[in-house]
Amino acid sequence: MGESVVSRVVRIVETFGSDTPALRVSDVARRAGLHVATASRLIEELCRHGWLERDDDRHVRIGVRLWELASRASPTLGLREAAMPFMEDLHAVVGHHTQLGVRQGHEVLFVERLSAPNAVLNITRVAGRLPLHVSSSGLVLLAHAPAEVQEEVLAGPLPPRTPNTPAAVTEPAGLRRLLAGIRRDGYVVCPGFIDRETAGVAVPLRGPGEQVVAALSVIVPNDRHARAQVPALRAAAHGVSRVMSSR
Amino acid sequence: MGESVVSRVVRIVETFGSDTPALRVSDVARRAGLHVATASRLIEELCRHGWLERDDDRHVRIGVRLWELASRASPTLGLREAAMPFMEDLHAVVGHHTQLGVRQGHEVLFVERLSAPNAVLNITRVAGRLPLHVSSSGLVLLAHAPAEVQEEVLAGPLPPRTPNTPAAVTEPAGLRRLLAGIRRDGYVVCPGFIDRETAGVAVPLRGPGEQVVAALSVIVPNDRHARAQVPALRAAAHGVSRVMSSR
Repeated sequence: MGESVVSRVVRIVETFGSDTPALRVSDVARRAGLHVATASRLIEELCRHGWLERDDDRHVRIGVRLWELASRASPTLGLREAAMPFMEDLHAVVGHHTQLGVRQGHEVLFVERLSAPNAVLNITRVAGRLPLHVSSSGLVLLAHAPAEVQEEVLAGPLPPRTPNTPAAVTEPAGLRRLLAGIRRDGYVVCPGFIDRETAGVAVPLRGPGEQVVAALSVIVPNDRHARAQVPALRAAAHGVSRVMSSR
Repeated sequence: MGESVVSRVVRIVETFGSDTPALRVSDVARRAGLHVATASRLIEELCRHGWLERDDDRHVRIGVRLWELASRASPTLGLREAAMPFMEDLHAVVGHHTQLGVRQGHEVLFVERLSAPNAVLNITRVAGRLPLHVSSSGLVLLAHAPAEVQEEVLAGPLPPRTPNTPAAVTEPAGLRRLLAGIRRDGYVVCPGFIDRETAGVAVPLRGPGEQVVAALSVIVPNDRHARAQVPALRAAAHGVSRVMSSR
């Protein structure tokens, strides 16, 4: 019985997302595939522990307490704290979205982002995900992922994200060449892969022991200046690695 | 039975903290007050869902997946995203720790922090807490908390945080006067309340409907310039409120 309660709790918490931060109990039940009575009882108990919270208008949300528990011992907290001062400097110089991503399976999860109000369009958000093969951060992480992960991605479907996504990342042979180029050059520039107006530029971020633990990237206007961000990105990535290694 | 499984899961996740990010299964069991077999079984299932993760050396940690779930629908995400550009500007100007805190019961929970490597000492951290009555952020939040929360805090013990904590916040009459002053002036300066070398300066941050939803603060050297940070803090707080109200 214990196992199934844990699964139900996980299904309930997973119904909340950036597009659905607040839901009625009946919506949670439907999305989680649970009887309303069961969902209601578990939501009640999760609210008592502060993991969920009730709005004034009978909606349920993720509780601040769950964020606190997950954040204070987060495995990415050390990385984020080391990266943030360098990301700030980078953001001040580049003036556009600056973000930090880690690999989770076949996707990149963005764990930190700095944005200026007047920056170019950017579809990512904190705690948002993108497939590895269509984003600059994801390509850097894939290039340095274990061989079996690379083979899984290369063997699977490689759908374009938008009509602008080039064949170089949707065909295994092209993607394999691109990944080799990233390992050789130490960066990637993705002009218009996701949006015609923007370019993603990413570099690997190495942890203690030189393994790649994250990707540092900027989203800039898609023009001939995009590649000029590489030296600043590399310098910032070196700084973060130095701080992490000295701890 | 469902209730007790949820409680056990909560107790297991709560054993992890900033000082104990990685624990052995036997340590988790002891801290959570569970039999090792029970804890082991629940940890196993939480790992399967990615809510916990296993290290190479048989330690268990909070999983990136739990952080992602809690973050992507976090009730403070909108606040943090609105505040971050202004916090960056403030941090660039002030050059010291800049932080954003929300009230959780009788404590302030820090949800965002920007720090320069060479900044003054600061005991707070992201997802860290401090009692309301000893920190500049906490005092601002207490001054604008519902009357019953203020009375609870004023009626309870008001322990000093350090030998430097002044009597003005450890005696009900003094604290009541200080809170009235904060409501009148719109800011608080706490010179040496927590550390003799530093001063906390905080202002309220208002959400839609003018209610105070957070405190914006800086931790600066404890000298006669501390109060000079108030105008920059106020301007930043106004900017955040404007962005939140326009959404």
